[in-house]
Amino acid sequence: MSARKLNCVWPVPADIDIAQSLEAQPIARIAEAAGILLSELNPYGSTRAKVKLSVLKRLENSPNGKYVVVAGMNPTPMGEGKSTTTIGLAQALGAHLLRPCFACIRQPSQGPTFGIKGGAAGGGYSQVIPMEDFNLHGTGDIHAITAANNLLAAALDTRIFHERTQNDAALYRRLTSELKTITPIMQKRLDKLGIHKTDPGELTEEERVRFARLNVDPDTISWRRVTDVNDRLLRDIEIGLGKAEKGISRRTGFDISVASEVMAILALVDDLADMRRRLGAIQVAKSKAGTPVTAEDVGCAGAMTVLMKDAVEPTLMQTLEGTPVLVHAGPFGNIAHGNSSVIADRIALKLAGEGGFVLTEAGFGADMGCEKFFNIKCRTSGLKPDAAVLVATVRALKFHGGVEPKDAAKENTDALRAGMSNLIRHIQNIGKFGVPVVVALNQFSTDTDAELALVRELAMQEGGAADVVVTSHWSKGGAGAVDLAQALIRVTETMPSNFQLIYRDSASLKEKIETVCREIYGAAGVEYLNDTEEKLADFERMGYGSFPVCMAKTQYSFSHDPELRGAPTGFIVPVRDVRVSCGAKFVFPLLGEISTMPGLPTRPAYYNIDIDCDTGKVVGLS
Amino acid sequence: MSARKLNCVWPVPADIDIAQSLEAQPIARIAEAAGILLSELNPYGSTRAKVKLSVLKRLENSPNGKYVVVAGMNPTPMGEGKSTTTIGLAQALGAHLLRPCFACIRQPSQGPTFGIKGGAAGGGYSQVIPMEDFNLHGTGDIHAITAANNLLAAALDTRIFHERTQNDAALYRRLTSELKTITPIMQKRLDKLGIHKTDPGELTEEERVRFARLNVDPDTISWRRVTDVNDRLLRDIEIGLGKAEKGISRRTGFDISVASEVMAILALVDDLADMRRRLGAIQVAKSKAGTPVTAEDVGCAGAMTVLMKDAVEPTLMQTLEGTPVLVHAGPFGNIAHGNSSVIADRIALKLAGEGGFVLTEAGFGADMGCEKFFNIKCRTSGLKPDAAVLVATVRALKFHGGVEPKDAAKENTDALRAGMSNLIRHIQNIGKFGVPVVVALNQFSTDTDAELALVRELAMQEGGAADVVVTSHWSKGGAGAVDLAQALIRVTETMPSNFQLIYRDSASLKEKIETVCREIYGAAGVEYLNDTEEKLADFERMGYGSFPVCMAKTQYSFSHDPELRGAPTGFIVPVRDVRVSCGAKFVFPLLGEISTMPGLPTRPAYYNIDIDCDTGKVVGLS
Repeated sequence: MSARKLNCVWPVPADIDIAQSLEAQPIARIAEAAGILLSELNPYGSTRAKVKLSVLKRLENSPNGKYVVVAGMNPTPMGEGKSTTTIGLAQALGAHLLRPCFACIRQPSQGPTFGIKGGAAGGGYSQVIPMEDFNLHGTGDIHAITAANNLLAAALDTRIFHERTQNDAALYRRLTSELKTITPIMQKRLDKLGIHKTDPGELTEEERVRFARLNVDPDTISWRRVTDVNDRLLRDIEIGLGKAEKGISRRTGFDISVASEVMAILALVDDLADMRRRLGAIQVAKSKAGTPVTAEDVGCAGAMTVLMKDAVEPTLMQTLEGTPVLVHAGPFGNIAHGNSSVIADRIALKLAGEGGFVLTEAGFGADMGCEKFFNIKCRTSGLKPDAAVLVATVRALKFHGGVEPKDAAKENTDALRAGMSNLIRHIQNIGKFGVPVVVALNQFSTDTDAELALVRELAMQEGGAADVVVTSHWSKGGAGAVDLAQALIRVTETMPSNFQLIYRDSASLKEKIETVCREIYGAAGVEYLNDTEEKLADFERMGYGSFPVCMAKTQYSFSHDPELRGAPTGFIVPVRDVRVSCGAKFVFPLLGEISTMPGLPTRPAYYNIDIDCDTGKVVGLS
Repeated sequence: MSARKLNCVWPVPADIDIAQSLEAQPIARIAEAAGILLSELNPYGSTRAKVKLSVLKRLENSPNGKYVVVAGMNPTPMGEGKSTTTIGLAQALGAHLLRPCFACIRQPSQGPTFGIKGGAAGGGYSQVIPMEDFNLHGTGDIHAITAANNLLAAALDTRIFHERTQNDAALYRRLTSELKTITPIMQKRLDKLGIHKTDPGELTEEERVRFARLNVDPDTISWRRVTDVNDRLLRDIEIGLGKAEKGISRRTGFDISVASEVMAILALVDDLADMRRRLGAIQVAKSKAGTPVTAEDVGCAGAMTVLMKDAVEPTLMQTLEGTPVLVHAGPFGNIAHGNSSVIADRIALKLAGEGGFVLTEAGFGADMGCEKFFNIKCRTSGLKPDAAVLVATVRALKFHGGVEPKDAAKENTDALRAGMSNLIRHIQNIGKFGVPVVVALNQFSTDTDAELALVRELAMQEGGAADVVVTSHWSKGGAGAVDLAQALIRVTETMPSNFQLIYRDSASLKEKIETVCREIYGAAGVEYLNDTEEKLADFERMGYGSFPVCMAKTQYSFSHDPELRGAPTGFIVPVRDVRVSCGAKFVFPLLGEISTMPGLPTRPAYYNIDIDCDTGKVVGLS
């Protein structure tokens, strides 16, 4: 048994001090208590271990545990504590109510860890430990994504260089190693071209050219490089300026690694074979003739899969109270779907089994994270959620009712009533998917009884929440979320989920966009700017019409305008651009300026971060 | 006991087929046999483990094993098998002669693995296994280096941006969090400026400006970004072209990660505290007033150390015959010193103990790798080598005698005699350091008895080698290097090393350069081009005069001209530029165009690399 109790002190110490005050239990003990065999574990140090996918085969006939998504209202500058609630609730279920319980969370990017946000291991007495191992490197998955993403970028640009500087015969001769071999990877391209030959000498001149020349149109290249650092100077760059590159310079840029399509793919795959196919399907550009150029055409999808072969396994860690946590994937919440991996959820559901719980976190507000959890992640996996926990705070609700952060500590039931529109719409939205909602009201010392009562009343009566429970897991650990845990158990036992998707695969891409905008955002309509209607029609023609849509929108509002708080209505959503992720298999409409590379502030977190060289301990990480 | 015997078949299968035909032993068993306690081990999966530095404390009073450097003649396009010899010799000593024996080798860059060179785990029946784990990611050290290097680059450029876009008061206010705190990291900068105050409100206006403005002169920025991908398009780029960056664009570029000064530092540090100091001392630019701007000034040296805290531990792996291998660091062989880490060597020497052996590999030819092993690595560590193994092949010697690779298989004693000049000078050079040399003649089936005898005769009589031994470890594993191992044991037992450095710390930088050029390269003199004399004088003034010099030169010739084979004389070495690595603590003169970012060929290795999705096995890696 790995559960253990906390001695919580007041005032609550700094996150890292709490995290370092408890030695993490050996990960093999956590695994054993969670039902994972030692042979299914790949340890990374003593506190992290990768879990092999073979566990799914062993348990394929076992029942699943309850599948619960933890989502939030639209985020505010004050923070609502969604990760903290996920961890605190897991501690309550696992260590206090002794239910088999897993928290499935995202691996954080190192960019924000050293930048403005700090770490992402929860906070107070609800944390994943060791928090420095969680926040730094993990088991290397994001580094593997960076490597795979950038290998593809280098391969594409260098191929263009070689095609530009060599004649047809030389290019074909070099590609085939002096006409000696066509490798199985090259064979895939030949098959795509309908050239069913295996001996490089047999191809006609015309076939050789078709095979060897990808003929990439540089203006169509959509694949960018990535780095897991907040490096704003790399947002827009010009590459290839060296003399040796012979004038093939072009404009491009870097995104933060978690914005890579490779990350979105990792979060959605079933297994290694599915990953191999999806990586090969990534579209990086078009040829001058307008045909898609894929990672498979470039020839490095096999190598990318090899780089990702360990990353496909989720990482087991633990909460402060010894509850198992699966950390896996962490795609961007706007240009991607913002949810942790299907594989981790599947493994956790089998291990939790009958009577157990899996808490999986959806990024941003529920209009983004939860909508995509349902419409993209569950659509892809076929898994059916049993309940949603929706995290809110009185302060954040008052903010949505028009109060500024500096005044949010004062009682203000009028503002609270106005701001409840935000929470109510989220509850109702989740109801449209047939999933019962428990509101977790993350308590602050400044909340008044009148305010707490008002939230409960409106959420239940106007929103239709299954329950509303006040929690204090930040200051009390799992003990502070026991009420929430009991409510969740009751709801999942008495209110069966009638999960349904809100649009069919076969709906047109425009119908899908409009359904999300009207049903979830509360928009009056959609306008297609620039050439987005033509692009969508083009996507349908190219066979991407069955993909779900992944809206790239601000997280701060139901609308496309981050300033519109509460539950705005009557707005028209502008679709400014549309793109497709052919490997991750979704179309993403861009509704505003979406930054895919954060910057560092004037005083970044690293000014606090150092190492105590005597003890080897990290200091100042938050 | 972890030693095991091989059943070698002929013809020798592909490297990956041999590597995958034997299951690696559990790394804990390798560790135990090597004298490492389980509590000193951090496993990464079942076949790799980091070794904690606490082993050094436990064994501080134990005797060291014999310290043997494995070096090569000047490399040729055919490959001489230096890594393979290191591994094969370790297998012979460990598994056949049952001596405690460690091979200490470099972690390979992923760039060449997917590019032109393939992996670096040895070859044939002398390999480190699992070769895919060795060649891909390792235990994440290079990824940590990339992250630390690029955090510093982003921090520097973003600081310049913030300084340019904010007035003095705003900048100081934000840096100190509204005058609330000066962190210990900021305190280091205040100390450097001679401002002994801790309350941000106490500083005078003038002190605030001095503290807050690094005033970097963009033309002096020497810190580049890195990626572990062969991405030639990133060699020369322009960054900061986005509108939000407000026109602070500048020219810079990416190097391959292993060329980062952070890698050179990792290879030379004693411990975590030494690493923290050296990372802080990295000089990234000069201020407009001409003073050095360091990583400490930028404020992220603590965070860089935190990113590197696991990387400071070497990684234990195993040979095909169960001999322990420590993999750690892998700095570039020309702009850095091309040797694996001091820490790994120290740990291995203590674990090997009396009667044991540590084989550590020096990159490139001995004129580069071995000279730097002595003059930089041993100078820094204070360790004294007992012997050198110098790897040569008959084919490569004939190449140095003027024969082209296509003709190297034919007997040609005249060419061999001419090419022996190369080997003889290397033997004599190592003799100047007082270290006895055993030549390992890596046998090929085309070598004739007359050729082998000639090499022996000339190496012994003209070069002064302690012994010359023919080896066949590639086709026979350790059994093929038993004669070499026995010779090495005999030499270390009967011919004590009189190790001495060839220049003193107190010699001037010009004296150091000239000593290496004349004594090791055989040059007639040195010419200082451009402003290199002024720069060297400047380095002396700034206190870098006591650093050793790390020559950035082609590996293909004793001279600066890669076309000059054999043992050229009479040439004048041009010093085209000189730079300094203040963290790694060496000055590096550039003697020619040194590429720090390889490119991908038309047919890169990735065309062969894929994964078997049924078994999860990597295919096509070489």
